[in-house]
Amino acid sequence: MPTAEPEHRVALDAHGSDGRPGVEVAAAILAAEAALGVDLVGDRSRLEPALREALDARARAAKLDGPAREALEAAVAERVAIVHASQEIAMDESPARAVRAKPEASLCVAIARARGGGPCVGAVSAGNSGALLAAGTMGLGRYAGVDRPAILTAIPQVTHGAKDEGSRGDSRASSTAAGPSTLLLDAGANVRCRPLNLVQFAVLGAVHASARAGREAGARPRVAVLANGTEAGKGTELTRTTHDLLSAHSSPSFEFVGYVEPAQLFGPACDVAVTDGWTGNITLKVAEAAMAAWPQLLREALRGNPLPAPARSALAAVRGRVDPNAHGGAPLVGVDGTLIICHGASEPRALVHAVNLAGRYARAKIGEASREALAAHRELFAAASSQRLGRSQRQ
Amino acid sequence: MPTAEPEHRVALDAHGSDGRPGVEVAAAILAAEAALGVDLVGDRSRLEPALREALDARARAAKLDGPAREALEAAVAERVAIVHASQEIAMDESPARAVRAKPEASLCVAIARARGGGPCVGAVSAGNSGALLAAGTMGLGRYAGVDRPAILTAIPQVTHGAKDEGSRGDSRASSTAAGPSTLLLDAGANVRCRPLNLVQFAVLGAVHASARAGREAGARPRVAVLANGTEAGKGTELTRTTHDLLSAHSSPSFEFVGYVEPAQLFGPACDVAVTDGWTGNITLKVAEAAMAAWPQLLREALRGNPLPAPARSALAAVRGRVDPNAHGGAPLVGVDGTLIICHGASEPRALVHAVNLAGRYARAKIGEASREALAAHRELFAAASSQRLGRSQRQ
Repeated sequence: MPTAEPEHRVALDAHGSDGRPGVEVAAAILAAEAALGVDLVGDRSRLEPALREALDARARAAKLDGPAREALEAAVAERVAIVHASQEIAMDESPARAVRAKPEASLCVAIARARGGGPCVGAVSAGNSGALLAAGTMGLGRYAGVDRPAILTAIPQVTHGAKDEGSRGDSRASSTAAGPSTLLLDAGANVRCRPLNLVQFAVLGAVHASARAGREAGARPRVAVLANGTEAGKGTELTRTTHDLLSAHSSPSFEFVGYVEPAQLFGPACDVAVTDGWTGNITLKVAEAAMAAWPQLLREALRGNPLPAPARSALAAVRGRVDPNAHGGAPLVGVDGTLIICHGASEPRALVHAVNLAGRYARAKIGEASREALAAHRELFAAASSQRLGRSQRQ
Repeated sequence: MPTAEPEHRVALDAHGSDGRPGVEVAAAILAAEAALGVDLVGDRSRLEPALREALDARARAAKLDGPAREALEAAVAERVAIVHASQEIAMDESPARAVRAKPEASLCVAIARARGGGPCVGAVSAGNSGALLAAGTMGLGRYAGVDRPAILTAIPQVTHGAKDEGSRGDSRASSTAAGPSTLLLDAGANVRCRPLNLVQFAVLGAVHASARAGREAGARPRVAVLANGTEAGKGTELTRTTHDLLSAHSSPSFEFVGYVEPAQLFGPACDVAVTDGWTGNITLKVAEAAMAAWPQLLREALRGNPLPAPARSALAAVRGRVDPNAHGGAPLVGVDGTLIICHGASEPRALVHAVNLAGRYARAKIGEASREALAAHRELFAAASSQRLGRSQRQ
């Protein structure tokens, strides 16, 4: 059974998630079944028995015996490699200090494997997000033209309200397996940002939007600034300055469409929305919480009345579409390499999605595209560098 | 048919909503049926025929004839008064300038009627929110001890997740007709805030939480600061300074419970969450958009399969619970009087809810309670006044 793309191995930090290392081990097996190659990075003395146990569990759950079981074992033997790392970073450690003090931490070893020239095309971890930011930035370095890396997240485009009717139908092509989505960045790496950071996020976000599956070649992604309304007087000094910079410098790689307000993130108003990491993180967390609340509300309102089968499966489909576990995994963009950050509470399938995403970026040559796009926006960055927010205007 | 509380008249700006003045006129009739007294403030030459037409429409819709129709007419004649205002503020006018230039605007006249000693206990408008803030602050003045008024909004507490298990069940008493909720402020009045503003919001929010229906007497509301996580290192300089001030000064009127993160707003972790008006507005708008997206997603997933009756009514119940139109109306707090701000897209029932809320505040003597609480926190405010955010730390 030949692997589809044997060169696209991904390093998976085995000691990141809340359910570590069991969740990561189970993810590695699922990935192997999906023909993805994984370096499972962690404590070999724990991972070897865990992998054997998880194989047994998987075979039982999928009722595999005889040749099917052997095929699974062969796939895992061929595609999953355990790479030893002698240290672990705990959730409560000071991120930057832990990363410096523990070069042999599973996270750091995984990222080192994804460095240019390394055996892996990317790294995936569900660990301490502060440590991930520090290890990713230090371990991979930044592209020239990037001051701060950002976390990029995808918000499903689920509404087609009146507000969005003016948008260009032909550009609605950014999509996940679960449907089109809006890329939002920064979703939490930088609590404070200045206009230079946001215009860099615009360039990086557009590269990612262009690389998304299903996108028409040549259609420039539409980039917007997230604000509290679309009128000219809305926003903060940060959003207004960013708006003016992006309006004044036309881009070869994206079309700037102005402000979007939060509701428009859930529709086709833009392909990429840029914001500071505080606002982006609050937006992401509120959206997840509100989406997660609905099924619970519906269950309460049903008061024990069962839903019929078609309604149950529709509900499951919706949950799958909005569940961060189903399409979890947010890349850290701006670093010179691929690092996918997953929720601490990730389930195995979320990690498999992240492994798959890292392979997708490699196939799309997202590094080359990012370098080219950054180089093509030097004038914009120079103009933005001179923009600093006044004391009374900082947001 | 005697009015229950004839002294509690509320001034309703008839030229505020997107559907003005028809929506406001229909709301006045519904309010009269619910034994609420309304001063409908606007252009008499338009409102008189509109009121007659709306009465006819209401009588037809409710199939009222003979004595029932006469009773409705009597209720409206007794409880709805048209108060003439010769000007109107448009959505696109510069708010502060419009309020100064048009003292006879329906919004300004409505607010003047709700001033201390005026004939109304409060004013309600679905107009230009900038104009509402300006007219409310100028027309009503601020309480001593309030530097900036804030918009207060209620987020339904719909989840009971693991994160909330540590919270005190006995304090889950803040509630709307639709169930318990978390009061969030500032939801949009002040894009930039300093720690002094946030600690004042804490005091004002606690007064409102204490006055909510169903609350146990003596149970102190739990107040939190909204942040991007609950760990000590999270937040911004603004949230950290506010956190430290509220930790260091114990309050006679509320219990400070530290940080809450966005997901906890939807559960019983706290009764009041304070934040700056930028973050609060983004939070509110993302929550509304995400909540509104769900039924649409479910409809798409059902692909035309009808829901059975119990599921349909459960779905309708959930929509009612999360729909801002159903329990719309956010008070501007910190001003010396009651002003309820409604969505521009409000339906009549949302305005009736707002009229009802204004009466509730009057019965709860929220003005007296606010003045007392503000006076009891002078030390906290003095400590907060000296806290200014550094140039590099402003958020």
